[in-house]
Amino acid sequence: MKHDESNANEELPQDMKRRGFLGISGLGLAGGVLGVGLPLQMTATRSLAQGGALDGKDGLDLLNDRPVNAQTPAHLLDDAITPKARHFVRNNGIVPDDTSAEGWMLTVDGLVDQPMKMSIDDLRDQFEVVTMALTLECGGNGRGFFDPPASGNQWTYGAVACSEWTGVMLRDVLEAAGVQDSVVYTGHYGADAHLSGDPEKSPLSRGLPIEKAMTDNVLIAFEMNGEPLHRLNGAPLRLVVPGWPGSCSQKWLTRIELLDHKHDGTKMAAPSYSVPSYPVAPGTDVPLEDFETIHAMPVKSLITHPQDGADVGSEFEVRGHAWAGDRTVQKMEVSSDYGESWQRAELDDPVNAGAWQNWRTTVSLPQSGYFEIWARATDSEGVMQPFAIKWNPKGYLNNSFHKVAVQAKVA
Amino acid sequence: MKHDESNANEELPQDMKRRGFLGISGLGLAGGVLGVGLPLQMTATRSLAQGGALDGKDGLDLLNDRPVNAQTPAHLLDDAITPKARHFVRNNGIVPDDTSAEGWMLTVDGLVDQPMKMSIDDLRDQFEVVTMALTLECGGNGRGFFDPPASGNQWTYGAVACSEWTGVMLRDVLEAAGVQDSVVYTGHYGADAHLSGDPEKSPLSRGLPIEKAMTDNVLIAFEMNGEPLHRLNGAPLRLVVPGWPGSCSQKWLTRIELLDHKHDGTKMAAPSYSVPSYPVAPGTDVPLEDFETIHAMPVKSLITHPQDGADVGSEFEVRGHAWAGDRTVQKMEVSSDYGESWQRAELDDPVNAGAWQNWRTTVSLPQSGYFEIWARATDSEGVMQPFAIKWNPKGYLNNSFHKVAVQAKVA
Repeated sequence: MKHDESNANEELPQDMKRRGFLGISGLGLAGGVLGVGLPLQMTATRSLAQGGALDGKDGLDLLNDRPVNAQTPAHLLDDAITPKARHFVRNNGIVPDDTSAEGWMLTVDGLVDQPMKMSIDDLRDQFEVVTMALTLECGGNGRGFFDPPASGNQWTYGAVACSEWTGVMLRDVLEAAGVQDSVVYTGHYGADAHLSGDPEKSPLSRGLPIEKAMTDNVLIAFEMNGEPLHRLNGAPLRLVVPGWPGSCSQKWLTRIELLDHKHDGTKMAAPSYSVPSYPVAPGTDVPLEDFETIHAMPVKSLITHPQDGADVGSEFEVRGHAWAGDRTVQKMEVSSDYGESWQRAELDDPVNAGAWQNWRTTVSLPQSGYFEIWARATDSEGVMQPFAIKWNPKGYLNNSFHKVAVQAKVA
Repeated sequence: MKHDESNANEELPQDMKRRGFLGISGLGLAGGVLGVGLPLQMTATRSLAQGGALDGKDGLDLLNDRPVNAQTPAHLLDDAITPKARHFVRNNGIVPDDTSAEGWMLTVDGLVDQPMKMSIDDLRDQFEVVTMALTLECGGNGRGFFDPPASGNQWTYGAVACSEWTGVMLRDVLEAAGVQDSVVYTGHYGADAHLSGDPEKSPLSRGLPIEKAMTDNVLIAFEMNGEPLHRLNGAPLRLVVPGWPGSCSQKWLTRIELLDHKHDGTKMAAPSYSVPSYPVAPGTDVPLEDFETIHAMPVKSLITHPQDGADVGSEFEVRGHAWAGDRTVQKMEVSSDYGESWQRAELDDPVNAGAWQNWRTTVSLPQSGYFEIWARATDSEGVMQPFAIKWNPKGYLNNSFHKVAVQAKVA
């Protein structure tokens, strides 16, 4: 397959992209009104969006509709386990027409002793079936806050979720195929089509270092919260690689290839899913050879209650989730005085390795008025979220503090 | 005198103001080039600026030239005692033509037992002459970072200074005049003219609660670093009220009136030098009756070395100043990892009550690349600078963290 780094969104000039984002993201609310006077191509994709791009999803904000990208407002991520209807959508290509399980085949080949081709029933029958709550986050979640802006989907907070995934362990499948000694990387292939329609082009084909692929919580999943996957989330079969950029979790999975070199699929090369190997000033033009591929995502947290802008009394519960790539979260803190003081939140252990951790605390405010509730997490190695963005050219890994604003009425 | 809240700058629409700020603030560097095609009125005021508005000042950035407002880049505030040439300028009106000490008279009247009218020599002869290092900061220092923006001078960091002032204590003078029991407030009058030229209008006339006026470190000053005052800083006579908004420190001082009610001079009423009595959301339209006059300024710090954007090695000194209104600074900390860790800086005591405190520490960086050095101070009551702006409609009291960015080359 040819590699193609292009993306409909990324070929527009910077200010067009931002305007495009603002215009299209409002569509779910006011598409008909805004449609007047738009070029034919835009109205066509808008019709598609309004005609069901987010069927089966509930309350998501649509960022783009070709490909479909949609995030979940923070307060709609309040559940410990993210409902299927509220799992964000990050697509690079066009969803396959047929996403039914029947007839779907997965090939495992490359440097294996025994190449395999299996149906989903074969997977169920031949391997231990496990269910785990696993956190997926887009590598560009939080990109919308970069200054200067980074091109790509302008995610704010909602490109993260933790649903229950049922499937088989990638490790078990690879071991059955026989991983040869020379293997260093996996390559993943999906059935989604390139936006151009060119069947020779792949919208996305990423991979994993073999050590990561062999860990316990990397799944080949065929159920999401006990049901078939949502078509936008990779039905009927996908990888789920918790704690790494979502793009590692190939959707509409058809093939896994084992390689004796780093996979060179679409969006494996810098600057895709890559950051500079040293910290750079905002706006720096970084040479491609100075980038390195992102592995684990950094420690981060989200406030899911109260909702941003909520009316509250003098005392109320603040709660949400925290996660830390391949690590766990050790400490969760909340401040309502811009960091002058932090109060420790009650923090649950993850329900399994790879699940986000739920936390909660009761906040008291001293007077009526406007307050910001800020949250920060610290991981098991003592690394804490930064209060400012560590800028990089493509807008990845923004794990700065989350805040919600509230209006307090104190008797 | 009539009160007049107007200000040349404040009558423009919001986006004009910001454009005006950007255009004019660049003048010190590139005025001639930018002048092409500007309306006559703007080129005229620009000519004035280039023709000597900042004579006797060194390195200040001009924000406006009618009235003259200019701030000092942070790295030029590195001295423990701010040189006369680097003290910021915040004017509301037109500087008096004659600012020589000869013939200058100060009246003290109102609710006193013995009204007085004194020359500067009289002040020197009749009262103890003291010299103190005193911090002055514009109430709107940091306004340039408000979002949504607040109207007024778009100060960033440099509307603060700590020079040595020589004069007599306001308290001694008031006691000599005999403060009557009914007095609650002072009213201050200066010789500067209203921008309109109308002699009935005052550009600024502020006052102090009598308790503040009677403290030891409020001076009627006639020397700045052992020399006559700079004409833009109030020559030949001014008040110096450390730790309160600079506007309390009336320049070109001609009269102090004692009052049995809060002074009602120009810019005493809300929203001038006033903030809401409860925290408000960014962009809130606050009723005037909900404002209260600013008294002491909040705890704050400034990094004066290294300069923002400097090249550094792996280890270097970071230093600056910190101040806290009527309080002292108890702790000074610096972070180079976005607040994950803070190192305590060595912090000097103030040289006298009302002086800023100098601090320094050695920072080590782990690798080459871009780093931000952030500073935060905590005052004697345990109140720390916030990491985000506490928004208010007029853009006062921004005491959020200061940072400088550096490019490190680590061997």
